[in-house]
Amino acid sequence: MALSSTQAAEISAQREETTLTRREVAPALEEMLYKAFPILDHGFIRVIDYMGTDSAIVQAARVSYGKGTRKVNEDAGLINYLMRHRHTTPFEMCEIKFHIKLPIFIARQWIRHRTANVNEYSGRYSIMDKEFYIPAPEQLAAQSQSNRQGRGDTLEGAEAARVLDILKNDATQVYTHYEEMLNEDIVGNVVDESKTGLARELARMNLTLNYYTQWYWKIDLQNLMHFLSLRADSHAQYEIRVYAEKMLEIVKAWVPLTHSAFMDYRVGGAALSSKGLAIVKRMIGGEKITQEQSGLSKGEWRELMKTLELPEAA
Amino acid sequence: MALSSTQAAEISAQREETTLTRREVAPALEEMLYKAFPILDHGFIRVIDYMGTDSAIVQAARVSYGKGTRKVNEDAGLINYLMRHRHTTPFEMCEIKFHIKLPIFIARQWIRHRTANVNEYSGRYSIMDKEFYIPAPEQLAAQSQSNRQGRGDTLEGAEAARVLDILKNDATQVYTHYEEMLNEDIVGNVVDESKTGLARELARMNLTLNYYTQWYWKIDLQNLMHFLSLRADSHAQYEIRVYAEKMLEIVKAWVPLTHSAFMDYRVGGAALSSKGLAIVKRMIGGEKITQEQSGLSKGEWRELMKTLELPEAA
Amino acid sequence: MALSSTQAAEISAQREETTLTRREVAPALEEMLYKAFPILDHGFIRVIDYMGTDSAIVQAARVSYGKGTRKVNEDAGLINYLMRHRHTTPFEMCEIKFHIKLPIFIARQWIRHRTANVNEYSGRYSIMDKEFYIPAPEQLAAQSQSNRQGRGDTLEGAEAARVLDILKNDATQVYTHYEEMLNEDIVGNVVDESKTGLARELARMNLTLNYYTQWYWKIDLQNLMHFLSLRADSHAQYEIRVYAEKMLEIVKAWVPLTHSAFMDYRVGGAALSSKGLAIVKRMIGGEKITQEQSGLSKGEWRELMKTLELPEAA
Amino acid sequence: MALSSTQAAEISAQREETTLTRREVAPALEEMLYKAFPILDHGFIRVIDYMGTDSAIVQAARVSYGKGTRKVNEDAGLINYLMRHRHTTPFEMCEIKFHIKLPIFIARQWIRHRTANVNEYSGRYSIMDKEFYIPAPEQLAAQSQSNRQGRGDTLEGAEAARVLDILKNDATQVYTHYEEMLNEDIVGNVVDESKTGLARELARMNLTLNYYTQWYWKIDLQNLMHFLSLRADSHAQYEIRVYAEKMLEIVKAWVPLTHSAFMDYRVGGAALSSKGLAIVKRMIGGEKITQEQSGLSKGEWRELMKTLELPEAA
Repeated sequence: MALSSTQAAEISAQREETTLTRREVAPALEEMLYKAFPILDHGFIRVIDYMGTDSAIVQAARVSYGKGTRKVNEDAGLINYLMRHRHTTPFEMCEIKFHIKLPIFIARQWIRHRTANVNEYSGRYSIMDKEFYIPAPEQLAAQSQSNRQGRGDTLEGAEAARVLDILKNDATQVYTHYEEMLNEDIVGNVVDESKTGLARELARMNLTLNYYTQWYWKIDLQNLMHFLSLRADSHAQYEIRVYAEKMLEIVKAWVPLTHSAFMDYRVGGAALSSKGLAIVKRMIGGEKITQEQSGLSKGEWRELMKTLELPEAA
Repeated sequence: MALSSTQAAEISAQREETTLTRREVAPALEEMLYKAFPILDHGFIRVIDYMGTDSAIVQAARVSYGKGTRKVNEDAGLINYLMRHRHTTPFEMCEIKFHIKLPIFIARQWIRHRTANVNEYSGRYSIMDKEFYIPAPEQLAAQSQSNRQGRGDTLEGAEAARVLDILKNDATQVYTHYEEMLNEDIVGNVVDESKTGLARELARMNLTLNYYTQWYWKIDLQNLMHFLSLRADSHAQYEIRVYAEKMLEIVKAWVPLTHSAFMDYRVGGAALSSKGLAIVKRMIGGEKITQEQSGLSKGEWRELMKTLELPEAA
Repeated sequence: MALSSTQAAEISAQREETTLTRREVAPALEEMLYKAFPILDHGFIRVIDYMGTDSAIVQAARVSYGKGTRKVNEDAGLINYLMRHRHTTPFEMCEIKFHIKLPIFIARQWIRHRTANVNEYSGRYSIMDKEFYIPAPEQLAAQSQSNRQGRGDTLEGAEAARVLDILKNDATQVYTHYEEMLNEDIVGNVVDESKTGLARELARMNLTLNYYTQWYWKIDLQNLMHFLSLRADSHAQYEIRVYAEKMLEIVKAWVPLTHSAFMDYRVGGAALSSKGLAIVKRMIGGEKITQEQSGLSKGEWRELMKTLELPEAA
Repeated sequence: MALSSTQAAEISAQREETTLTRREVAPALEEMLYKAFPILDHGFIRVIDYMGTDSAIVQAARVSYGKGTRKVNEDAGLINYLMRHRHTTPFEMCEIKFHIKLPIFIARQWIRHRTANVNEYSGRYSIMDKEFYIPAPEQLAAQSQSNRQGRGDTLEGAEAARVLDILKNDATQVYTHYEEMLNEDIVGNVVDESKTGLARELARMNLTLNYYTQWYWKIDLQNLMHFLSLRADSHAQYEIRVYAEKMLEIVKAWVPLTHSAFMDYRVGGAALSSKGLAIVKRMIGGEKITQEQSGLSKGEWRELMKTLELPEAA
């Protein structure tokens, strides 16, 4: 990520302004506000605004006339209870707004979460920046052999070099052609007066999917946690997971009690099927069970043994 | 509305706390924060929190790195443009949270707006307050003769008195029985040790629909405007319209540029059908047109003439 | 439930009409179509329409050009995989529409599920039927002592009789007054020409919350399963659970493979917290653990032991 | 669009199967079912399933026990009334499901409509087809001078040829490199055993935005009409508008009464602002008004005159 000096100055200026408010304030999140946290080679996450803190959750759960908070351990207990019993509505009472720069192929995954508000930079209206994603060498992974939707070993040597060459050269070439078709520079001045220039809404189709886009993205805490439970997971694609992991840090600064309950009950927990639960009960009772006896498919058995940190074969 | 002294004190205490924030602040809304604005006989609206101001809308529309605002008239022009062309996503970048006390039969209309976040006081878990809505005499309207879903003239004299008696007596009686069935007082102490007491989740079914409930209700500005365009409208039931009208004042204090655009393009405007537009064009051209010639149904013609402030019959 | 003879005849007539379609058909659900399944004393559930079957789920998951189905066990395996890994979008490809009659206090819980489409009978526009819910004697439960949001023992003898009397008498009385205030009969004819009659939108506020309302309710299969996982659960209020349980039967007739996966992975399964999972691992390893050693709160420990069917104290 | 012979055969096979159903059937839509209607050079729209017809709308509006329909003109009158007064919930009672093939840059606009259900072909899991969009010569438009988000004159001659060359060559080249990086053919066989092959979820980032993707897309009629009011509009990008226009035809075959009301009240109608309405009233009264006197901005005046088919300057 390279912010222009103008952008950096705008961010600094906004960070310096403070005003008194009667609203609840999250001090550790205020410290992060507006800063651009770099993600991947040119992406970032910035927190632009937020509403509510842990106390807003207990206040809503209690439908309170005042702050609604009690002792910290009572509030933590209530938040744990709400999380455990999936009483989700109080968590919807907090809201956060991000400014995010991310590759288009990741934006396409991200946008599938429909319960957020989005304002994206428009390639119909504006000229796209010349910034594209090139994986770091350690991310140049082969197709997984066991999982059709995943990565295996890392490419190395000449093969890795060839992939990086292709990605860089093709991205560079399509942008050169994008500029040529537009016949205007980044601020909209005509380059060659003898030519017409293709409409922006058409020219953009020549860009590759690793080009960066950016958007304002606003979501409530409940739906953010749902997003994070899927996208900070080890099955998520690396290039979206790095955004989710930074967001987990931001959530920790914002609503520490909720973050702690979320890590315990969602991220670090496990969902057992009815059959899986029956097996666990028998194992606690001292039985030795094999996949063949379990009634589970091989895939289910493998997943259950992984959850329990047991060897697949006894 | 009669806040208890404890409630009033909690609200005052919360109003007195101020903290520095880096976030955008809406000064006129800060002034209103936490205050209970009385609505109907026992209801209220309180603003509990908000996110963003007019400048958050232009900032998102410009996908800005800084505040994103320019001269006030440029910002107003952009907001008018967004409203006129139904570019709705930037308006979703502002959020507001209310604490609202309202009769249950109104809550049932209100909740049909699905794009909000709601935390309602639970009659399964807690004991309902003894507060019910009795219309003011000037609101005791007869069934409309022209509109099956509306009000006509006001009831008067003995008839009005009889209605008020019924409403008060029935509401009082069902609450007395509610208390008897519960066999516990408002703070949950058993009244008659020799009896058992019905579960709260069952006893509440004996209350009438004019009993008050309360909830925390959070919504983004775009969806709030949609709510207001329907509920501040003259066709809305009076008992929900009074809430919507107070909210319009709150919106004006919060986001004055957006409020102004909303009043111009939504509330005060008109939607013409294709046929209606064709008639308007002919009228501007000097033609005299009657309902019979118009191709409109009587209902449509009446509505069009009302919109144009013209007599139904020439 | 007592359908009028007109209503019963309308239902029969609709059941008798059949037409050829190119769409996927669910034979067991066709058998149920339009029938009114009685719930509680006057309520019902009717299936009005549906879209898709199990095969629509695999077809969408495979983004297929044809039917997309393979061998039954391959389809079942895919549906199990989707359910287990929370790949929820293919389940959204099936849709079902119900006509439901239910008490208002249950309708208020129900409507909190926001992802459905709803058309409710309007008390502003029409006159409410004289039908109210009276619990069966075995449902007259006391407030639970251990769970503020639940039921305990059943009321008996004089106490039960008193509660039933109150509920019946109050519901009857408020309806008599409703009619008096309306001054019109069920088909809208004026009763007493010398009087005016209160607007329907006002008179309805005198009814108690156990009066029945009805609506058309349409939802996709994914969101229906979410509804059922909460409302067919033992923690749900009895009066909504009976509707959910009937719906589970309907889902089984409609999409049997999905129903089976749902029962295994959702309804019969369990979610373990990170701490709970750690304890399970130690127990499988042969350790004896007490609540004090567990790091869990008493409530969490009790819930975990219940899940594992172990005694709370060793 | 070139369906493979396998795909064409699958579609034919599905069209040939018919079954009896008790559900409402839309004959003209049945005729279209499963057929691939070509859009752009390689895209298509197919109707896969639907729920309800015009009669489902009146049935829900009347919360009926039977079919709920009356005489056709009564049903049409009710549908017109619902459309005019924005009683939107009955229109949500109909649902339709499409299989759509479309360029990625159009899919990115399309997905912004959040109220639909979507299952997209996965480039993480599967290999993308070699199909990309090249505009027809008459669509090679220059950037509009008056509207930053639109098209102007058509490019011609050498300039047009150059643009087409760029688009074709770059799309072809990035796909060749995509295949090379994957090191597998379309059915997943390794091409060069001495090489490893990049993970699919990474290799896809080298494709340009005019590559085609495909998805199953399901939406209710109300939200479909909202989509169409924006995307069949003259301000919409041509490449999405052609899909919307075909969908309008499909809607006409499916729910003709609703289509007619939609065309009259939404598509062909106009929204006047409060100021615009005041001007229309004065014009009907015979006044001559200029932009300077109008109180409207130049943009608003231009739009109003266009709506009224009047010259901008008197």
